[in-house]
Amino acid sequence: MSYRNLPIDQVLSLLQQGDKQLLARLITCAESNKKSDQIYISEILSKFKYSANMTRRIGITGSPGVGKSSLIEKIGFELIKQGRKLAVLTIDPSSSLTRGSILGDKTRMVELSKEDLVFIRPSPSKNHLGGISEGTRSNIQLCEIAGFQDILIETVGIGQSEHEVSSVSDMTIWIGIGGAGDELQGIKRGIMEWADLMLINKSDGSNIAKSTKTKNELQSVIGFMPFRKNNKKAEILLTSALENQGIEEIIKKIDFFFQDILNNNKLISTRLDQEIQFFNQKWQKEILQELLLQKEIHIKHSELINLIESKKIDANSASIQLQEFIFAHFKDRKSK
Amino acid sequence: MSYRNLPIDQVLSLLQQGDKQLLARLITCAESNKKSDQIYISEILSKFKYSANMTRRIGITGSPGVGKSSLIEKIGFELIKQGRKLAVLTIDPSSSLTRGSILGDKTRMVELSKEDLVFIRPSPSKNHLGGISEGTRSNIQLCEIAGFQDILIETVGIGQSEHEVSSVSDMTIWIGIGGAGDELQGIKRGIMEWADLMLINKSDGSNIAKSTKTKNELQSVIGFMPFRKNNKKAEILLTSALENQGIEEIIKKIDFFFQDILNNNKLISTRLDQEIQFFNQKWQKEILQELLLQKEIHIKHSELINLIESKKIDANSASIQLQEFIFAHFKDRKSK
Repeated sequence: MSYRNLPIDQVLSLLQQGDKQLLARLITCAESNKKSDQIYISEILSKFKYSANMTRRIGITGSPGVGKSSLIEKIGFELIKQGRKLAVLTIDPSSSLTRGSILGDKTRMVELSKEDLVFIRPSPSKNHLGGISEGTRSNIQLCEIAGFQDILIETVGIGQSEHEVSSVSDMTIWIGIGGAGDELQGIKRGIMEWADLMLINKSDGSNIAKSTKTKNELQSVIGFMPFRKNNKKAEILLTSALENQGIEEIIKKIDFFFQDILNNNKLISTRLDQEIQFFNQKWQKEILQELLLQKEIHIKHSELINLIESKKIDANSASIQLQEFIFAHFKDRKSK
Repeated sequence: MSYRNLPIDQVLSLLQQGDKQLLARLITCAESNKKSDQIYISEILSKFKYSANMTRRIGITGSPGVGKSSLIEKIGFELIKQGRKLAVLTIDPSSSLTRGSILGDKTRMVELSKEDLVFIRPSPSKNHLGGISEGTRSNIQLCEIAGFQDILIETVGIGQSEHEVSSVSDMTIWIGIGGAGDELQGIKRGIMEWADLMLINKSDGSNIAKSTKTKNELQSVIGFMPFRKNNKKAEILLTSALENQGIEEIIKKIDFFFQDILNNNKLISTRLDQEIQFFNQKWQKEILQELLLQKEIHIKHSELINLIESKKIDANSASIQLQEFIFAHFKDRKSK
């Protein structure tokens, strides 16, 4: 029987009991493009009142090949050892044909996914609102309603997603590896701007010297960066998922970070800011899309770009013309 | 007699003859918020067909106190020595009361401003389109019509303006000074992303060691940055406006840079991209503003933010509600 046939209060109640299958289905619904699905999820979310300080939203990012999954698995085991319920949301680059996940949940974090206290869910990154899947915010909240206390949001280090994971996280962790030259080119500008914790992974065996060098180099680059919103510089740790090194230290840094933002009341205010920012981004983006979907407006927009390209009009005039056209378009509909 | 009483072709012709007083008045018009003024300027701009490769648009930025004006004055004299006509457009933080420039044109670049081949104009930065005054693009084109070949666009290093000057420039120059710790905090993230040339100014006397150290540090930071759009890393020079050191080298770097982007056809394509991007930013920003100016929409928007803040609604629902409200608002007007 589909949950959609149940009264919404009953669905909410089942979700609060931690029904993982239902959670998975609701996440599928949250990721749907259908307006009715979005409205349904909004109803669920708006019916539940939770207090922010019960959960920790941790964004984790890094390029492919740095051992993200293995390290997250180790971190995950450490968290559930403390009795915490853990959800891992992985944002994958998606196949445009199937809209499914390329990586699949079966192939990664095999051991961790067997644990009762753990929920792992890969999501396609196709429905972008700047890298982070639009459903990601809803997914986080659905997991929280289902009783998961630590939400790890993992993004692949492609394009904007690295940066934007911080728009849905309380804390962001960057994972890289030691090395010089080419490998360090992978370190994108601004990492020090948003990363709260930087992990140099694979710091084992013959890599340790390289990792230490990279750590020192990053430390000096951090010196060049202005203080961030939360007035803290990124911290750097050497880790090895292979040799289980540095995992407890990561947990300590996470605990300390959250203790601090809870004490400062920063956690609640950050989340509220994120929510309002998301609201404004979302309606503005969607209303502009909606306008360009109107056939006549779309044609006019393309015509004006052609005119700019052939130097027959400047951007100012084109902008004025398009705005007049849009308002006239609505008036036209009025007189019909 | 006001130029507005003249036929527009005559105004264009006077401008092309290099009438500086007319240029100044047209810039005032371009910076006006009045729609009729904007349309007038658009008419002027659209009537003139110029070839892009005749001018060089150079953005110059840096924090207060690094000696920007003195260095620009030296650069300016070097350029006019080559017989080039030079316009300097300075974007100032503006007084919101008078909308005038705080710095004033009298107090800076006194000697340079006396030169026949030079036009200097400070503009308020109040009418933001992300830091750069909205009129800046028009001002640049007006100067070009008036025969100025090198347009220096100077922004104070406050907030976003540093970065956004590159959206109206072919080449961007960053000016800083040597030093450690606090002073280097002034070096914002991303400078290496958009600066084509970095000048460590005041590299004279006892400062030389400090400047050299900073140059080396910046050089190593540049190593961490990915290649930019134009596939070039920033270059760094030590300069001294006081001792007239490095000025000729700056000119050589500028000449070489433009030779290169002209050979690659990058100059024209960059400007076209900037124009289309500006068009899209402008109509989108203004249409959203226009929507929020509609009293009923404005009230609804504020109500929804209050509901989000009091946790009575989530961002998704609020976005859906606002969009429905906006389209219903137009339908309402239709039925009236």
